Amino acid sequence: MLTSLSVTDFLDELASNSPAHGGGSVSALAASLGAALTSMVCRLTIGKKKYADVQSEVEKVLKQSEELRAQFKAIIDEDTAAYNKVMSAYGLPKDTEEQKSKRTAEIQEAMKTATLAPLKLMEFCGKAMKLVKIIAEQGNQNSLSDTGVAALMLHAGCEGAALNVLINLSVMQDYAFVETKRTIANTIRKNVSDDFQHILYRINGKIY
Amino acid sequence: MLTSLSVTDFLDELASNSPAHGGGSVSALAASLGAALTSMVCRLTIGKKKYADVQSEVEKVLKQSEELRAQFKAIIDEDTAAYNKVMSAYGLPKDTEEQKSKRTAEIQEAMKTATLAPLKLMEFCGKAMKLVKIIAEQGNQNSLSDTGVAALMLHAGCEGAALNVLINLSVMQDYAFVETKRTIANTIRKNVSDDFQHILYRINGKIY
Repeated sequence: MLTSLSVTDFLDELASNSPAHGGGSVSALAASLGAALTSMVCRLTIGKKKYADVQSEVEKVLKQSEELRAQFKAIIDEDTAAYNKVMSAYGLPKDTEEQKSKRTAEIQEAMKTATLAPLKLMEFCGKAMKLVKIIAEQGNQNSLSDTGVAALMLHAGCEGAALNVLINLSVMQDYAFVETKRTIANTIRKNVSDDFQHILYRINGKIY
Repeated sequence: MLTSLSVTDFLDELASNSPAHGGGSVSALAASLGAALTSMVCRLTIGKKKYADVQSEVEKVLKQSEELRAQFKAIIDEDTAAYNKVMSAYGLPKDTEEQKSKRTAEIQEAMKTATLAPLKLMEFCGKAMKLVKIIAEQGNQNSLSDTGVAALMLHAGCEGAALNVLINLSVMQDYAFVETKRTIANTIRKNVSDDFQHILYRINGKIY
């Protein structure tokens, strides 16, 4: 499990020549960091007199943010498992016609799983970015740079997952699947990007 | 040390109500992840027949990328130390005029240190992004999405550090320092952003 490694060992493992842990796991970790910062800002808001009016809303945000953080963290390891499944399908024998066709089918099936993990990550990044939008307005204004970094991490996580989704789709043969998932990915990408710009615009306006 | 925690514990610590570990450390971690992915793609390029012509250049990139990764990792913990120094300056007594003026001076001095850490992070992100630009063109093209995620992480790390720099500068009194550092920060931000767009444009063009 990547997530049980120390940060130092995680970085060393990532930098090694093993391709199993790569951009997919890093995107999920970036999203986890975004959710963790969102939760931190919520906790630095709750209980403060100045923010008494928004307390119940921020508590709701915290609950959702912690749920998303758990989901993001699970995807860090899921992505590696999905990659390994693709690799083992590529390793199947291809000596007879029957083997070749079985191998192709297995690769395509494994690619679907490997595409659904980052697509789920993108969807959750969209939900998490909505939470950041709320805390950028209602959360502790002393933590604006942390809120901004939360938005940056979720945006980078979503865009990284999009690269993985699009690269997988580009070699897949089930065109109905490809078109449906590409449309979903591009829609999420646009929505997340719009929310992200909105948040950063607000924060940049406050720190000059 | 944050970097000796497991990824899971790091995320839990970050999400807690302790403000010491926040956007600054996360930005440095994002940059570390970007450098680690850059090193991985270098290692997946070196030794491959297809990339024999660029081998010596990619080896140079790997060496620099590993040096930057060590620098980034050090900043993860440095940022927390700098934050704690600011907080302890704020905690100084302010009963007499002399104490007040000493406290103000200490806060301003601590803020300078706390500003130089993310500024150094930005500078190193600029160097690391140049390396990603090289491997996007010359590195293993099967690892394009990892290269893209490396660029995304370095960009997010640089932008996160910029938020910290600008927020600190906005409350500082040494105007010569403020103007000089703001100009440096904005120049790095623009250069990193230009290189980032260039890399992503190239990668997006290849994966559709």
